[in-house]
Amino acid sequence: MDKRKSGGRGPAPKQGAPSRPAGGRGSRPAGGKPNAGRRPEAKPEARPPREGGLWLYGQHPVVAALENAARRCHRLVAVATDMEDLPPPVRRAVEARGLPVEFAERDVLERILPPASVHQGLALKVEPLEELALDEACARDDGERAVVVVLDQVTDPHNVGAILRSAAAFGARAVVVTDRHAPGATAVMAKSASGALDVIPLVRVVNLARALDDLGAMGYWRIALDADAPATLAATDTTGAVAIVLGAEGVGLRRLTRERCDAVAKLPIRGMESLNVSNAAAVALYELIRDA
Amino acid sequence: MDKRKSGGRGPAPKQGAPSRPAGGRGSRPAGGKPNAGRRPEAKPEARPPREGGLWLYGQHPVVAALENAARRCHRLVAVATDMEDLPPPVRRAVEARGLPVEFAERDVLERILPPASVHQGLALKVEPLEELALDEACARDDGERAVVVVLDQVTDPHNVGAILRSAAAFGARAVVVTDRHAPGATAVMAKSASGALDVIPLVRVVNLARALDDLGAMGYWRIALDADAPATLAATDTTGAVAIVLGAEGVGLRRLTRERCDAVAKLPIRGMESLNVSNAAAVALYELIRDA
Repeated sequence: MDKRKSGGRGPAPKQGAPSRPAGGRGSRPAGGKPNAGRRPEAKPEARPPREGGLWLYGQHPVVAALENAARRCHRLVAVATDMEDLPPPVRRAVEARGLPVEFAERDVLERILPPASVHQGLALKVEPLEELALDEACARDDGERAVVVVLDQVTDPHNVGAILRSAAAFGARAVVVTDRHAPGATAVMAKSASGALDVIPLVRVVNLARALDDLGAMGYWRIALDADAPATLAATDTTGAVAIVLGAEGVGLRRLTRERCDAVAKLPIRGMESLNVSNAAAVALYELIRDA
Repeated sequence: MDKRKSGGRGPAPKQGAPSRPAGGRGSRPAGGKPNAGRRPEAKPEARPPREGGLWLYGQHPVVAALENAARRCHRLVAVATDMEDLPPPVRRAVEARGLPVEFAERDVLERILPPASVHQGLALKVEPLEELALDEACARDDGERAVVVVLDQVTDPHNVGAILRSAAAFGARAVVVTDRHAPGATAVMAKSASGALDVIPLVRVVNLARALDDLGAMGYWRIALDADAPATLAATDTTGAVAIVLGAEGVGLRRLTRERCDAVAKLPIRGMESLNVSNAAAVALYELIRDA
């Protein structure tokens, strides 16, 4: 059972999360801005409101955003006649938040949203969430069980959203991605995530290899999912903290990504078949928590 | 471990698949046509070609269709200069099939396909597959291990396609659905299925309750996936032949569907979270074959 030979595991090294250089370079979004002001503060309301914002839609994303104290919410537009006409989970979340509701006709709502949005009569204008740095999202107490999903160049917002949703459902701590912020994709991702974007952090990093180094330093055992691996994930030691690393479909993991991992493992797939990346992530997450 | 109390299981009853009225009423598509000519024959080429057909696109769906002897293929359009310019799996499949290739510019291909199709330079005009009846797709020898996925009103072609793909990857025998044939959805489904539509049968039934009766008569233990179930799927007896039954997101299983099942089981999901239906199906299929 002891397949751990690389020595990348064990007690957190001295330069563990709390004492490493602030943030870890790999965890900063592109742009070169200083860290100050980019971290989520205890009181997000203290930051000045920005122009613009983002329309979330659909019951799950809207309720999750309303229930997330760190999410700044500006306007809620609902196809309903009054508070009593709202679905009970929405009404409860609105009342708890104290946000006024703009009751509207369906066509008013649909002029706000992209065509064919499955809005379920709800649209909520919000600010994007402040992004957590890798060490903020993934730091753990020594020996604490934790699972993180790392996506190497998986960019489709439906897939990333579905993976966020599975990660929340199976209790993962964070999803780490390499893609650049595409504002247009965020509402689609939030819809696919079905509220999970307001439940667990999506951490964007510029340099995935460095992020994997950092996760190793935090005590995560980094397992790359690869169809050519000799052993299945079920036959691999997955106790303790695990970062499960998946590549994009058809492309797989880049060499630099794989080299940063402590182990490779496969799912028990037949012959030439393969899984959609969000399905592979769901199965891997399930396997990781199955016996926990 | 013995949670089987309903008596719906055990040796196949006398009116098992081979001797039941032809096809089972629940397994016939709507339309009232007689069975003759609707079943796939040993030589599909013997049937007269129909007008119309369907454009599949993308490397996996095109290769899988070319490799499926039961699939009638009419035209292959490829963005390439010659045979050597085709991706090797495509070239091998084309050569084995003996289909001429129409080499074309990208804009020619894109005029054929719906906007924004992820075609990877390949489009294949095919006939829809002849649909198998439930007993043709699911019949099994007594005692033989088999898994079938049953979807209650899951209609989104991306989800059905992804579930077909997972079903093929985990060796399921068939996917049974209730939705009516929407030709426009078939190419999207084929793309999401990534070729699995040509690997395992998609069985369309009019009456799902009757189909579940038929599956029970074939010896399948029918397990409904339900977040409110007392036990997890991992703690449920899943030996032998299993039909795993999933409902649409937000709606769940209809009462008549659930009443036809032998057991209910849940996945170990945290709190109020849930999984996308294709992710739930993938995890359930994995659990079913994990120890097999």
